[in-house]
Amino acid sequence: MVRYEYITLTTDYGLNDEFAGVCHGVIAQIAPGARVIDITHGIEPFDVRGGGLTLVRAIQYMPAGVHVAIVDPGVGTDRRAIAVEAGPSVMVGPDNGILSPAVAMLGGATRCVELTNEDYQLPRAGGQTFAGRDLFVPAAAQIALGTPLEEFGDEVDPHTLVPMLVPLCSVDAKSVAGEILWIDRFGNAQLNISPGELEMLGASVGEQVEVEIEGAAIGAAFSNTYADHEDGVILLIVDSYGMLSLSVNRGRASDILGLRSATKVRLKTG
Amino acid sequence: MVRYEYITLTTDYGLNDEFAGVCHGVIAQIAPGARVIDITHGIEPFDVRGGGLTLVRAIQYMPAGVHVAIVDPGVGTDRRAIAVEAGPSVMVGPDNGILSPAVAMLGGATRCVELTNEDYQLPRAGGQTFAGRDLFVPAAAQIALGTPLEEFGDEVDPHTLVPMLVPLCSVDAKSVAGEILWIDRFGNAQLNISPGELEMLGASVGEQVEVEIEGAAIGAAFSNTYADHEDGVILLIVDSYGMLSLSVNRGRASDILGLRSATKVRLKTG
Amino acid sequence: MVRYEYITLTTDYGLNDEFAGVCHGVIAQIAPGARVIDITHGIEPFDVRGGGLTLVRAIQYMPAGVHVAIVDPGVGTDRRAIAVEAGPSVMVGPDNGILSPAVAMLGGATRCVELTNEDYQLPRAGGQTFAGRDLFVPAAAQIALGTPLEEFGDEVDPHTLVPMLVPLCSVDAKSVAGEILWIDRFGNAQLNISPGELEMLGASVGEQVEVEIEGAAIGAAFSNTYADHEDGVILLIVDSYGMLSLSVNRGRASDILGLRSATKVRLKTG
Repeated sequence: MVRYEYITLTTDYGLNDEFAGVCHGVIAQIAPGARVIDITHGIEPFDVRGGGLTLVRAIQYMPAGVHVAIVDPGVGTDRRAIAVEAGPSVMVGPDNGILSPAVAMLGGATRCVELTNEDYQLPRAGGQTFAGRDLFVPAAAQIALGTPLEEFGDEVDPHTLVPMLVPLCSVDAKSVAGEILWIDRFGNAQLNISPGELEMLGASVGEQVEVEIEGAAIGAAFSNTYADHEDGVILLIVDSYGMLSLSVNRGRASDILGLRSATKVRLKTG
Repeated sequence: MVRYEYITLTTDYGLNDEFAGVCHGVIAQIAPGARVIDITHGIEPFDVRGGGLTLVRAIQYMPAGVHVAIVDPGVGTDRRAIAVEAGPSVMVGPDNGILSPAVAMLGGATRCVELTNEDYQLPRAGGQTFAGRDLFVPAAAQIALGTPLEEFGDEVDPHTLVPMLVPLCSVDAKSVAGEILWIDRFGNAQLNISPGELEMLGASVGEQVEVEIEGAAIGAAFSNTYADHEDGVILLIVDSYGMLSLSVNRGRASDILGLRSATKVRLKTG
Repeated sequence: MVRYEYITLTTDYGLNDEFAGVCHGVIAQIAPGARVIDITHGIEPFDVRGGGLTLVRAIQYMPAGVHVAIVDPGVGTDRRAIAVEAGPSVMVGPDNGILSPAVAMLGGATRCVELTNEDYQLPRAGGQTFAGRDLFVPAAAQIALGTPLEEFGDEVDPHTLVPMLVPLCSVDAKSVAGEILWIDRFGNAQLNISPGELEMLGASVGEQVEVEIEGAAIGAAFSNTYADHEDGVILLIVDSYGMLSLSVNRGRASDILGLRSATKVRLKTG
């Protein structure tokens, strides 16, 4: 029996190399009773923010378990490797902010250790550490088996963990300024602005809103649904995560409007 | 124990966002005993026809189970969400034709319901429905557990289901006119023409056939195998699904001949 | 119970068609007790060398099992289909060299058979063989179940297996000449040169090394770690497999230096 049945993986490893497969192999050897869910291996290389936002969107739909997130531009430096207990789960990854939104979503860290005990790491092939294979995934598999966190290294004060700086939108009397958090496969562009923040400006679902993107202004229909809009209409839609997204009915808003992650956007009402 | 051990997934979600991973998470929480097979998440966005053809090619190699197919340009409109019992399996997806070829392959619908009972759906985050996560996959997991179809909503007359309009080829005395159904990873271009239809024109394996593609004519060798053909030779080969494919030995027919899904092709003999 | 619990898959099928999913379906039907690990399906089409190198990098991290590797430009010709017992595992694939490095890594072939018995193959749809679906994967699933190798066909003398020609580097008094084996997702370029071979020239970690790439010469820092190097510095780093890689701290060496698989590289010291 395992202490945690599920291990999830969120990485920037891609699927064309053997990196993700090797993580599965390492888990199979250490904790054969564990089940693995690949949240995604398609985070853009080194995009810590993208990894953290992906994990926090996914985490509420995952079973309790050990959640590994690895986007690790600091591999080989002295950034810490950590395991963080939060809610019914344990998050494992580099201490660069990638875990922070999910830890907060689960109610905050109840305990944290640094993963320094080499007894729970794979022997190095000799050079660079492949931290996922050699350190994070073996630790996750051991945690799934029930190895207590204190076995892995010293306790870390959760207040010292690196936060993820998710930008907040700013609201004034006539507008709300924010930015794009995420472009999805369909070209929808999620904002860091909630419908409530737009409604505070007096906008209601069904009305037109002015959208300023890098100086240029366009109109968008504030909407709850794609229905009743013709193909190609630009929408400011409440997306399936409850946030506002710039979206084009059966089109790609990101291409049509030239949006990328972190593009600045300002919404104005009449 | 589960009623159906396997749930398969065929979607246009891609693997770079967390969409496919979240489907696995939702299944793990509702039906932890179920096993999930990803047929593919790489259907082109909104390509209902591509999704339906992929599913029908795959279905005969899948164990009995609950087969979910989601390519859903009509999400948020009044297109129906359905579960269709066919052969030993249940197909789940939008009623836009994507399930129809597989249902027919399994012998036709023996029963169909509309998925309207919100007790078997996840609570909405507030805006758009992420129909896979909130509706189709929870229903599939419940069906795998053994929840009877009638629990999900009203019966639907299978004759009212949206068909998939797979184009038929047309044969006259001297030629057969059809189109490309599918370009695979290797650039092979499957036609909606069977070898039998070509043989009705008098062609035999081993002979040259004239292929008209958007006005231009080329020759292709009607063949059962890549062997005995030099690299670069254009073949009209009987593919591993028993259909004719335009194929180039160790080359990409789609690039060389400028083929895409739905490109019109006419085959002529002597 | 199964004889081998794990089946791994390494192919050039990609994930956009149903090919990989169908392999999972075939395994589920023949050997439902087996567990499947996808090492990768992202090998470049027809890149036998890339497939063999990927498998040998991954194999040491995989549990004992049946390891299927399919990159098969010779499908439909008379290349043999084989199963090779090596160490605690059985390798299954075409006899084109793809299995050879992994077989050697596992201590060499202890037994080999040709997969000719059609009782263990799926019936053909009528044309081309989809060898993964119809032959290799069914054989792997049967082997996992415990079907003895001799059931599948005649014994093959392991000395007659097609080797993989992995190029060796050549060392002279002042330089070592080799080539790129692999470009990974992050743009790191692994060489067929070990740090020991560079040290034989008198180079030590921390020193600058001259790197000749197709006539042009650049400098690179021979290093064990990314730490202590600024972003953008070109490194000759000992990678996580113990080989030398051309690497750029938080950059893509392959793009910056114009490297591809098989690009020739010469390293010189002082």
